[in-house]
Amino acid sequence: MIGQTEDAKNANFINGLDVQAAHDTINAIKSDKSLAKFQFRAKNRWISGGTNQSTIRDFYGAGREDKSRDEDFVFVNGEPPILLGNNEGGNPVEFLLHALAGCVTTTFVLHAMARGINIRELSTQLEGDMDLQGLLGLDDSVSPGYEEIRIKLDVKADCSDEELNDLLAYAEQHSPVCNTVCRPVPVKIERVSA
Amino acid sequence: MIGQTEDAKNANFINGLDVQAAHDTINAIKSDKSLAKFQFRAKNRWISGGTNQSTIRDFYGAGREDKSRDEDFVFVNGEPPILLGNNEGGNPVEFLLHALAGCVTTTFVLHAMARGINIRELSTQLEGDMDLQGLLGLDDSVSPGYEEIRIKLDVKADCSDEELNDLLAYAEQHSPVCNTVCRPVPVKIERVSA
Repeated sequence: MIGQTEDAKNANFINGLDVQAAHDTINAIKSDKSLAKFQFRAKNRWISGGTNQSTIRDFYGAGREDKSRDEDFVFVNGEPPILLGNNEGGNPVEFLLHALAGCVTTTFVLHAMARGINIRELSTQLEGDMDLQGLLGLDDSVSPGYEEIRIKLDVKADCSDEELNDLLAYAEQHSPVCNTVCRPVPVKIERVSA
Repeated sequence: MIGQTEDAKNANFINGLDVQAAHDTINAIKSDKSLAKFQFRAKNRWISGGTNQSTIRDFYGAGREDKSRDEDFVFVNGEPPILLGNNEGGNPVEFLLHALAGCVTTTFVLHAMARGINIRELSTQLEGDMDLQGLLGLDDSVSPGYEEIRIKLDVKADCSDEELNDLLAYAEQHSPVCNTVCRPVPVKIERVSA
């Protein structure tokens, strides 16, 4: 659980995170669990071929619509020539790796803060294997998704190896993207007309 | 399966995709399944708090290392103030929605091409529900990942509603990101030292 240590509570910032703000959020959620309900959103528009563009801005969380963003985030998916594109952007399965890397990292850093552990450096390298026979419908026994994703995590921190290993196991178990990938999450698609 | 229709084979481009190139790829894979093996990669470096940055460039596919990209793609994860950041970028769970939207779209457009269906417009809206008690470790019965993701897909194309419904079901079943989310995919994390 976030925030057990008195040392952490007394510092202002650990790992670039505002410790008091984190504890305020935790305490608010503990007293009203509905504040933990978040809904994230994206809108995407097809451009041509394997190119499409997402806009991301609003979300719901902590009991209200968030209004902190003045502009949309805009992200472009593309494909390399071997997949019929011109490298207009990273492709969707690469963006998934970016999401996974970021989520494991942020979850690690957040729970390090909660334990009063100062992180000095943290980097990851990800590899994901995929058999395109799945996407192409050439073999129904092949899953179209990633077969496996491997993350190599290099962290330097002011604590023991044992504490780092424990923290990593905890981050893996509590990362939202990691748990969206390693557990089955329902995706419901319906056609609508504007 | 990709590429049954003679009409599709005779056109040069459908939906912005090079039909001949697609068929050449399919035929190459059919004669040597090892060409379908791809490995995608990302490197990520923590910056501070909930901010980190991925670089994406090389990948392996079609029997060789891809060399088509002259520069890295660089993507920044951030967090909104309610999640202890300053909106330095979209956050990881939002990037996952971007990846999912793009993958369903590209899979749809690709298999439309294979069926000779001309797509005029395609857009999606995604919502994903998440209970932050999971991330925060406040309730072990709550999964840290998305509980459910819903996609509303609006498509206009030169074919019947029935054909579109069939195509959508096929895209859902064959999208790599959709199948990484809706099925359990192993994520293996190990610590390394540079």
